[in-house]
Amino acid sequence: MRIKNSAGIKLVIIAILLVIISCEKKPEGVSESKLTSNHPSLILTKQGVKDIRANLGSIPIFDKTLAATKKEVDAEIENGFDVPVPKDYSGGYTHETHKKNYVLMQKAGALYQILNDEKYAEFVKDMLFEYAKLYPTLPVHPKTRSYARGKLFWQCLNDSNWLVYTSQAYDCIYDFLSEEERTTLETDLFKPFADHISKDNPQFFNRVHNHATWGNSAVGMIALAMDDDELLDRALNGVEVDNFNPDVKDNDGGYIRKDGQEIGFFANINEPFSPDGYFTEGPYYQRYASYPFLIFAQALQNKKPDYKVFEYKDGVLLKSVNALLNLSNANGEFFLLNDAQKGMSYFNASLISTVDIGYHFGGNNPELLSIAEMQDEVTLDDAGLAVALGIKEGKAKPFDKKSIELSDGANGDEGAVGILRSGDLELVFKYTAHGLSHGHYDKLSFALFEDGDEVVQDYGMARFVNIEQKGGGNYLKENTTWAKQTIAHNTIVQNEKSQFNGKYDIGSKHHSNKYVFSVTNENLQVASAKEENAYPGTKLHRTMVTIKDDYYDTPYILDIMRVTSESANQYDLPFYFLGHIMKTNFEYSKLTTPEVLGKSDGYQHLYKEASATANEGTVSLNWLQNNKFYTYTAITNYNNELIFGKIGANDPEFNLRNEQTLILRKKNTKDALFVSTIESHGTYSPVSELAVNAYSNIENIEVVHNSKEYTAIQIDTKNNTSKVFIISNENNDKDAAHKLSIKNKEYTWKGPYKLIYNK
Amino acid sequence: MRIKNSAGIKLVIIAILLVIISCEKKPEGVSESKLTSNHPSLILTKQGVKDIRANLGSIPIFDKTLAATKKEVDAEIENGFDVPVPKDYSGGYTHETHKKNYVLMQKAGALYQILNDEKYAEFVKDMLFEYAKLYPTLPVHPKTRSYARGKLFWQCLNDSNWLVYTSQAYDCIYDFLSEEERTTLETDLFKPFADHISKDNPQFFNRVHNHATWGNSAVGMIALAMDDDELLDRALNGVEVDNFNPDVKDNDGGYIRKDGQEIGFFANINEPFSPDGYFTEGPYYQRYASYPFLIFAQALQNKKPDYKVFEYKDGVLLKSVNALLNLSNANGEFFLLNDAQKGMSYFNASLISTVDIGYHFGGNNPELLSIAEMQDEVTLDDAGLAVALGIKEGKAKPFDKKSIELSDGANGDEGAVGILRSGDLELVFKYTAHGLSHGHYDKLSFALFEDGDEVVQDYGMARFVNIEQKGGGNYLKENTTWAKQTIAHNTIVQNEKSQFNGKYDIGSKHHSNKYVFSVTNENLQVASAKEENAYPGTKLHRTMVTIKDDYYDTPYILDIMRVTSESANQYDLPFYFLGHIMKTNFEYSKLTTPEVLGKSDGYQHLYKEASATANEGTVSLNWLQNNKFYTYTAITNYNNELIFGKIGANDPEFNLRNEQTLILRKKNTKDALFVSTIESHGTYSPVSELAVNAYSNIENIEVVHNSKEYTAIQIDTKNNTSKVFIISNENNDKDAAHKLSIKNKEYTWKGPYKLIYNK
Repeated sequence: MRIKNSAGIKLVIIAILLVIISCEKKPEGVSESKLTSNHPSLILTKQGVKDIRANLGSIPIFDKTLAATKKEVDAEIENGFDVPVPKDYSGGYTHETHKKNYVLMQKAGALYQILNDEKYAEFVKDMLFEYAKLYPTLPVHPKTRSYARGKLFWQCLNDSNWLVYTSQAYDCIYDFLSEEERTTLETDLFKPFADHISKDNPQFFNRVHNHATWGNSAVGMIALAMDDDELLDRALNGVEVDNFNPDVKDNDGGYIRKDGQEIGFFANINEPFSPDGYFTEGPYYQRYASYPFLIFAQALQNKKPDYKVFEYKDGVLLKSVNALLNLSNANGEFFLLNDAQKGMSYFNASLISTVDIGYHFGGNNPELLSIAEMQDEVTLDDAGLAVALGIKEGKAKPFDKKSIELSDGANGDEGAVGILRSGDLELVFKYTAHGLSHGHYDKLSFALFEDGDEVVQDYGMARFVNIEQKGGGNYLKENTTWAKQTIAHNTIVQNEKSQFNGKYDIGSKHHSNKYVFSVTNENLQVASAKEENAYPGTKLHRTMVTIKDDYYDTPYILDIMRVTSESANQYDLPFYFLGHIMKTNFEYSKLTTPEVLGKSDGYQHLYKEASATANEGTVSLNWLQNNKFYTYTAITNYNNELIFGKIGANDPEFNLRNEQTLILRKKNTKDALFVSTIESHGTYSPVSELAVNAYSNIENIEVVHNSKEYTAIQIDTKNNTSKVFIISNENNDKDAAHKLSIKNKEYTWKGPYKLIYNK
Repeated sequence: MRIKNSAGIKLVIIAILLVIISCEKKPEGVSESKLTSNHPSLILTKQGVKDIRANLGSIPIFDKTLAATKKEVDAEIENGFDVPVPKDYSGGYTHETHKKNYVLMQKAGALYQILNDEKYAEFVKDMLFEYAKLYPTLPVHPKTRSYARGKLFWQCLNDSNWLVYTSQAYDCIYDFLSEEERTTLETDLFKPFADHISKDNPQFFNRVHNHATWGNSAVGMIALAMDDDELLDRALNGVEVDNFNPDVKDNDGGYIRKDGQEIGFFANINEPFSPDGYFTEGPYYQRYASYPFLIFAQALQNKKPDYKVFEYKDGVLLKSVNALLNLSNANGEFFLLNDAQKGMSYFNASLISTVDIGYHFGGNNPELLSIAEMQDEVTLDDAGLAVALGIKEGKAKPFDKKSIELSDGANGDEGAVGILRSGDLELVFKYTAHGLSHGHYDKLSFALFEDGDEVVQDYGMARFVNIEQKGGGNYLKENTTWAKQTIAHNTIVQNEKSQFNGKYDIGSKHHSNKYVFSVTNENLQVASAKEENAYPGTKLHRTMVTIKDDYYDTPYILDIMRVTSESANQYDLPFYFLGHIMKTNFEYSKLTTPEVLGKSDGYQHLYKEASATANEGTVSLNWLQNNKFYTYTAITNYNNELIFGKIGANDPEFNLRNEQTLILRKKNTKDALFVSTIESHGTYSPVSELAVNAYSNIENIEVVHNSKEYTAIQIDTKNNTSKVFIISNENNDKDAAHKLSIKNKEYTWKGPYKLIYNK
């Protein structure tokens, strides 16, 4: 080494001294990388902090989030904090307090970096030391309901939440702490904490499930913060276990990972995400898992870019952001697929980081900026800065949700969700795989939204998340006995039994199959799918169509459910309309007192309120919901039965919502065809008291052909137009030529379906 | 006459010629006043038109309304109009078309005056002549349901609506028409039209009821437009009839005016309005009657200022504007007193003129301007101009709704409505007279709103106004069998019988009595009232209190219902909470299938879903509604019964909403005390999934004294405070001194009530 001047000499001396001092203090097993003081490096980076500080005051959405966060944290610092001995289920004091604490620490950590004010670092440090004092004294949590009990919380899942957030806080104040302080925290708190949720609970950690995603990410985040490569490997690839029992199930009835299967973070990306970015548990749990997936991916990208995590599986983590946003209605609320609570939306905090990370690491899609604008908040990190700068520079474009089919299955070959959007209508048609332990037995079910409001509903889950009064805020038993059952959904129930006999072991082996998804013509969009395993010996084929006529303002739905079976059965097709019945075109007789509809498979939770017998022809139901008029028109055959049902029987604790359904029942039938239309055709105003277009526009619907090869439905409207929709039942080849004679008229066309206007 | 110059001479000659020509053309019976061409003069005046034209383009709210009106009318002129032969009930084509026509004519008339474009006058003229052609050919309307059938519509009421609007249009194009044209219209259309709704239907015209108000105003408006003093007298003072049967009732069961009683427009102001401006039928019908009251008053003031109509009865018409606005919740929706449809609000078109007229003729109250701003529309007339100018000049002030008691009865001595407002809570407590034919049997009932949402509901009426599917949009039979009955309300039902035996003849003879209304201390507001006639031999005394503690964010309600009777009875007190039951502190057993609760008086429409037996102590019910947590805590005695009920039994056409109630039942009891608290204490977010303050703050409530003289309730809260509320049961003198010993502690105070903090 050549020394050029005395200043240089001094620097070298200081550097050498520092190395010596560091070496003296360095505990065994700590890698050299710490010495370069590369913190923060997870969600905030040193360069990011520099850029943020340089832009503060000129990036409105970031400035606003920062001010709100500062206000919130300042108030909490003022109030003081509590680290109570764990005791409660969710909703209870100790649960909610520990939850509040980790969020506060994460925020205070970011504030320390951005504002360079040590009071925030002190706050995090003080709280961490309280935890470091408490943690070693803790047995597993006293509440026993979980298959994997945590220590701070009743389940490892929540402990993992804590560690994902706290790791970020630790990363932010890392340099603020002395080596000794860090050692204490890591030895007394972080390492045993990570061990508990991984080594001590492999049935939780070694799964492919949102629980494991949280666990893996938690261990991975603290590994990155501590530069602990052994823990990082555990996070990415799972923990080794001896004597693992592959038959264990979790609380929801889902299987624990089987021995020999892929485990760890990468396995959790690989399997549940389809190539389209659809998460097999459904959007509600994707929203939940999205945070650990993306926050850990971000940290990994920042700290270990060689993993190229955002390129993994053809960039599926970034695709998943787009998929998730597309799985929301006009209000941003997620569609209810599998276990899902109503009202969850892309305004959830986890979606703020999802959107920001998706923007920052996914090629700066300007449509994401408009979602961020609606969220009116960004993450206080590099990603949030990028979004704030994008908005500031006027780059935002509307996030245009179109009709979309999202495949399910690791390879995209296990069915799909088809979403048809036409006018204000959004039709969600489900022909997926089972959806792991959160799956419902609802193959070929659908739900309909208009302008963000549910019109034909999916019940969602029977749970009041975090509301302690209702079963500790956890899944209620009615989730299994009602919400998951087939009769709770808008799809066929055979012989009053749920699909796959309501058994997860069977259901999770199968999936429905895509048949047609064609949305290029916005006036005629078709989604069609088949299910051949739900009821052995019976095949279901449903085709859902949105049709927009020139003559009417609003599009309508045509629904063709074709059932073919080897045996005679009873088929029930429920229709869960929301709103107040206005009128039917059929006579029904209301029971003096409701009767319980059945014995099991969810039927025990339905009251029969009224019934009718149908003839050859159509029945129609006109109803009012949210000041809009709707009509459901269904083709019936001789002796079909109609049942007005209401949810709420055998519900001793009023856990269920008492909503209604209209069931069309065909008894002792081998092959059956259920055809109906759903229209939104009018409006009412309680202010002007004007009813506009209160009645259906449809004069008649009729099956004009139904063979093994083709099904054709004629639709006559009240303005004297008539059209025929034909679907080919066996050939979905886009280019196949078809010829069919109906009522002495010959139709020829190409492709799996055709709509012909006759007058 | 001295003639000064040749120009003057010419003028005189022209004038003389004009008089001669006029005289020649003047048909007999037309008064001189027409020659002065004083049209328009009803809602628009000549000066007003001049002022409007001068300000156009610089009065944003007026300009916007004008543009929207022009756009609407232009489109309709483009489309062409129809004057169909009457056939339908409301909701049907001919009904809705005639309704649309009169609104269009009124608007086109105003456009003609303001824009000075003859196409609008032509439009009105063409339509009027179509009516003039049709009307003489018409028999009474073919639909027979009304006690007073119209010709264009199924009831004279709607015919009157037509004439109130059309008179304004006629006034606007009066000068545009030739004398001959006017004669045709007046002879073939307006006079026979006015005769039909007055002379031909005295049972409609000679009442004190909103129907008659419309009828009187309609005849009055056309009288002013035609300068017909005989008709004006008829409007103001009623029509003379021979052989009148005083026992006739209308469709709602209301009495037709008795012979010899005051009739006509002034009688309709005098009797139903209390000196405070409260309209005895309730705000829903006040809203409806408000338009004819005020539009005719305006026309009368403009044309015949000598009547000083706005000073009549100490200015009650103007006071009524303020009263009506105060009878709305935070969203501007009217409280549900008597027959009323939910959702009706001050955004209704009739309230636009109400507010504008109230402002223009009532001293320019700047608070009305803020309502007009929210309405975002003004009337296209002198009053609307005044409002537009006021807003433009920045005079608007918030309309500050405070706690208020509005007396009922022509002299203000027939009870009242008491509204307690505290924080976001609005408590509506009803101790009025019966409310004419729209009255409900619900003395001492209440309803609770929070931030515009109903929490403890009044059912409102059983009717879907103008929705033809539901009984032609008219009152459903369930309005009588359910909505009017006592059990449909939050008040005491004795022996499963409605108050006054559900008989209008009896109920309309009585009223409740005010006892205390004290709202000067916003942390402790008290409304107390007595009802001694609803159940002969039984006296009801209810005291409702809002208490705001320092310790909690939200105020709560204390409700004391004291029953004293000469005989042992069963008392039911229903509590119509809206939302989902979270938890009770008592065990209930849910029935396998619901049972019908009773035989008559509304009980036949309630299902019993679950029941429980209470002991000495308190019961509490915790529920979730609109993402807010509420708790109802009630003191119970040994063997009290609790019943969870649901509306919907004996409802063969699904006319009723299936909402729930909790009934507290005391059997075989002479004197009873029902005491409860209602708290809004927490929130839930389905987006963050956080439940905040999910549980009640009240530890216990207890009756610590109950004598003929005093009732005292102790309230202990969970933060260890204890207070006692004492009400004097027999002395409501503000200055009376009281002394009472409770639990060995002596309390002394002045006035009818006291709240004492003990710790």
